Amino acid sequence: MNAAVRAVAQAAFGKGWEVAAVESGYAGLLEGRFRSVDSGALSGWMSRGGTMLGTERSDDFATDEGKSRAVEAAREAGVEGLVVVGGGGSLAGALALDERGLPVAGIPATIDNDVAGTDMSIGVDTALNTAVGIIDRIRDTASSHHRAHVVEVFGRDNGYLAVMSALAGGADAVLTPEFETKPEDIVRLLEESYEGGKPHFVVVVSEGASPTADELCGHINDAGESYAADLTAAGHIQSGGGPTAFDRILAGRLGAAAVKALADGDAGKMMGLQGNVIERVPLEEIVGEDRPLDPGLYELAGELARIPR
Amino acid sequence: MNAAVRAVAQAAFGKGWEVAAVESGYAGLLEGRFRSVDSGALSGWMSRGGTMLGTERSDDFATDEGKSRAVEAAREAGVEGLVVVGGGGSLAGALALDERGLPVAGIPATIDNDVAGTDMSIGVDTALNTAVGIIDRIRDTASSHHRAHVVEVFGRDNGYLAVMSALAGGADAVLTPEFETKPEDIVRLLEESYEGGKPHFVVVVSEGASPTADELCGHINDAGESYAADLTAAGHIQSGGGPTAFDRILAGRLGAAAVKALADGDAGKMMGLQGNVIERVPLEEIVGEDRPLDPGLYELAGELARIPR
Amino acid sequence: MNAAVRAVAQAAFGKGWEVAAVESGYAGLLEGRFRSVDSGALSGWMSRGGTMLGTERSDDFATDEGKSRAVEAAREAGVEGLVVVGGGGSLAGALALDERGLPVAGIPATIDNDVAGTDMSIGVDTALNTAVGIIDRIRDTASSHHRAHVVEVFGRDNGYLAVMSALAGGADAVLTPEFETKPEDIVRLLEESYEGGKPHFVVVVSEGASPTADELCGHINDAGESYAADLTAAGHIQSGGGPTAFDRILAGRLGAAAVKALADGDAGKMMGLQGNVIERVPLEEIVGEDRPLDPGLYELAGELARIPR
Amino acid sequence: MNAAVRAVAQAAFGKGWEVAAVESGYAGLLEGRFRSVDSGALSGWMSRGGTMLGTERSDDFATDEGKSRAVEAAREAGVEGLVVVGGGGSLAGALALDERGLPVAGIPATIDNDVAGTDMSIGVDTALNTAVGIIDRIRDTASSHHRAHVVEVFGRDNGYLAVMSALAGGADAVLTPEFETKPEDIVRLLEESYEGGKPHFVVVVSEGASPTADELCGHINDAGESYAADLTAAGHIQSGGGPTAFDRILAGRLGAAAVKALADGDAGKMMGLQGNVIERVPLEEIVGEDRPLDPGLYELAGELARIPR
Repeated sequence: MNAAVRAVAQAAFGKGWEVAAVESGYAGLLEGRFRSVDSGALSGWMSRGGTMLGTERSDDFATDEGKSRAVEAAREAGVEGLVVVGGGGSLAGALALDERGLPVAGIPATIDNDVAGTDMSIGVDTALNTAVGIIDRIRDTASSHHRAHVVEVFGRDNGYLAVMSALAGGADAVLTPEFETKPEDIVRLLEESYEGGKPHFVVVVSEGASPTADELCGHINDAGESYAADLTAAGHIQSGGGPTAFDRILAGRLGAAAVKALADGDAGKMMGLQGNVIERVPLEEIVGEDRPLDPGLYELAGELARIPR
Repeated sequence: MNAAVRAVAQAAFGKGWEVAAVESGYAGLLEGRFRSVDSGALSGWMSRGGTMLGTERSDDFATDEGKSRAVEAAREAGVEGLVVVGGGGSLAGALALDERGLPVAGIPATIDNDVAGTDMSIGVDTALNTAVGIIDRIRDTASSHHRAHVVEVFGRDNGYLAVMSALAGGADAVLTPEFETKPEDIVRLLEESYEGGKPHFVVVVSEGASPTADELCGHINDAGESYAADLTAAGHIQSGGGPTAFDRILAGRLGAAAVKALADGDAGKMMGLQGNVIERVPLEEIVGEDRPLDPGLYELAGELARIPR
Repeated sequence: MNAAVRAVAQAAFGKGWEVAAVESGYAGLLEGRFRSVDSGALSGWMSRGGTMLGTERSDDFATDEGKSRAVEAAREAGVEGLVVVGGGGSLAGALALDERGLPVAGIPATIDNDVAGTDMSIGVDTALNTAVGIIDRIRDTASSHHRAHVVEVFGRDNGYLAVMSALAGGADAVLTPEFETKPEDIVRLLEESYEGGKPHFVVVVSEGASPTADELCGHINDAGESYAADLTAAGHIQSGGGPTAFDRILAGRLGAAAVKALADGDAGKMMGLQGNVIERVPLEEIVGEDRPLDPGLYELAGELARIPR
Repeated sequence: MNAAVRAVAQAAFGKGWEVAAVESGYAGLLEGRFRSVDSGALSGWMSRGGTMLGTERSDDFATDEGKSRAVEAAREAGVEGLVVVGGGGSLAGALALDERGLPVAGIPATIDNDVAGTDMSIGVDTALNTAVGIIDRIRDTASSHHRAHVVEVFGRDNGYLAVMSALAGGADAVLTPEFETKPEDIVRLLEESYEGGKPHFVVVVSEGASPTADELCGHINDAGESYAADLTAAGHIQSGGGPTAFDRILAGRLGAAAVKALADGDAGKMMGLQGNVIERVPLEEIVGEDRPLDPGLYELAGELARIPR
């Protein structure tokens, strides 16, 4: 996200605008926590992981009255336009502010890749590479027969990160919220895999899948005394780390596009990557919408995993 | 490339085909150096950098007679279809073999991203992340006034890798073969940058640019006694290293698509990523063609660099 | 471990010896699974994580009769000397084989760093860097008040990895098996830390500590409704990955020393790093012994953590 | 170095001291550029590469008069003790300040590992791992016969980094300032290596070696038309990047020791790692001294490289 903030600031400087960063998200907006940003303040932001501006839940902002107060706070501070960088919840807030008269441009940023209207959100490529690094390391470990390594990755209700991790990590199976998998099929696959001479067996499970990673481990452990499952929850490891080149470039493109949209008086839009171009997507079209998982990628993960490796 | 070979093999196993890998490229094809590949042989290929099958220049294959002999060698070995993974030169060879009656499918793989008909070739994302890692490290080093760090990256006649490295690395300037830059403008930018209080100045230069990285360093060093330029040639560091998630997934998609094209009897095509879909592009349309650099990305790199960081 | 196997082979070739690698540890030794190793076979071993020879538990080898059969199997295969690379259990096996007349040299390799007689075992530095990378990433994630990140690292009964991870990761607290910590003290530290304005709070817990990482999370979550604890178990992520320079060099030094010890007829010894030199330590002195944790390092971790960062 | 500054500050806070950081080294000291450091100011320093305080050459400080003025500047600012983190030149400056009455403690930090009185300086382990990563990547690249990859690493007059990089990178040869190597011997080794079937040949050359990396490439290229040498200068890539666990821990230990030495009234000493303990070494014993290269490690690099890999 830091790279997106930097790009927004650079593009805004290019238009001769003054720039302030809001600390701690909508909570900070309500409290008027603006940090003035000049050309020197962003040194090193490009390569930093996490969110240097901080984030904080705000119960106040969740109310109608809170949202109106946020618009007032922004106006009092002289804010003429706001760029919101975040996931579905943040973009819903952005829409609410825009509807209340504050010109807003949205930039999708979430490792779950569950924001509609864009092929990729900022942070997904970094999280994906981290998850794949974890799978690689787990597969490196000394393996023994009839042991399954179950890796749980983020994604909320969206299996994107799980499917892509499985594809890139060469996993033997993947469980997502979108497609049903019976645990007994995984146990059978594990059995066949070791009979086929494979030295390891890795299943990637999306956090929203059913069975969950935990439940799948239980099924495997119960399947017979010669079976054992190791659970690794990638958890917050996925959210940190320096951003990949793709994420930095995406942040740069979306950030510059957001400033251009505000300059054009075209507020209330989210900048979305669609194929190779950046499109302005009305926030009202994407708020509350799900981003569907491409079934072709799910099938490909199965196709490339089908034969023991 | 290893991930592409693995994907081709997995997809071919899925069709019940027998698979052999050709060692050392066309040189190995001429000499009949086939390595039989079964399901166990590819363990670990996913995460390995470089080219495990090796590459070798072949003067023999460069002749018409050599190409005809290669087709014969393939037929004698019972080869019914060939998947060629490589850059422009390799794909030109693939077209020649296909024209001589050996069904061939092509997969673009080169870190220069100069193959027409595809948005990305396998290897580009990995090389890009390596180049950005190099830029990050160079910017970390203790900086002193009026010193410019010049980083030369690969790309042959194509500035893609340079522009994307500059964008992702937050470079202050980028020189490519496609756009002219006067060295005195770089010196002036360097001057302004340090007067603006920036602690470092990084220029990315594509290997095909004019002035070259070497020449640019000369210009900077000659510009006055208070100027100094450090040259870092990323060179072969860019070509190695474990592949990123994007490259592994692209390899998986292109590899499976190549097998499907051969299975459909649709030979003579290169699999290309266009937007989000894999297209079959006639080899004759892309051989000898240049892949143009998106001027929007070049301009964006300039826009985000304009203001000192 | 692969780097150690490579070093042993290289040093043995230097003495003109023939070399065979035993697959799957003592299980493979009993079954005579020797893999002949020549100079070309080890290409690329240096940089590979995990154990390319595999490991396997052997119930047979656990018996006296099994150990005698292993010595016979080795002799029948013409083995004149054996180098065992592994942790405490493997080195106990090595001693048993040596006592039964097979000359053995031991090399300590375990990420737990719990082998006596050596400052460092092979694998510790790599695991430590992985654990620190995990802590860095977790600290990068957006933080909110009164939330504690609890990271569980390996180490069995030894707190070395936990203390060193905490020191290098800049953790706020560390729990080890060797030193008692009351969970209420951690809760109080967490409270003070956020009152002091720190944006994150990270505790490293050794797997053998009491309270365990799980129990500590429970304590924190029970401490009040404004508290929450996130558990990240580094688990098998720590065991994989390409080895660090230190581990490769240590492997090279210990491997060469083991071959030299066998060549000198000085069997029954483990090669140990003590300060800057490699010593030959009698296996009987280290088998069953614990490696004590340096209390100075534990205190230093506390000293550097005491003040909010 | 950032980790060392953080450790000094943490340890000093522990003694109830006030802490200020000097920007841009001795140049900043002369100009009184002190930055007050409190407990919140050091967040994130642990994991940052480079030198966040900056460095700058100072011609003024090089004079006797300049050194006296620096002591005055420190006194005026209320400085009662100074910790200097740096290489040989910085530590010579530290001795001069101490002799002029300002209590100083020294901490060795240089990637060249050429400071006497300590086994390791801060930064060496990080630079070593970077150099090894470069060698790994270069070896990954497609190789062809009779091509030598020559990698130049830092080290000034000290071959430590070259020898350790060669050992850890599995290089085929290493050239250092301390030991003479004839270029024709390298050419012969290259020849033998490819005749022995090795797919690549890597030579590590210390920047102070004779022949230099450049000269060696010339020799190889002149040796016959079938030979070619690729030069990769690791250069400033080595100086940046996030610090390894070892470097962070060493920084923590040396930083705490420096504060303790000042608290004990034992100024004029450099903190040195000797074996496993931190010793206080009189600055006058190490200034101007060379740190000898361990010939055993040089021989080991040769022993492990002797046989083709």
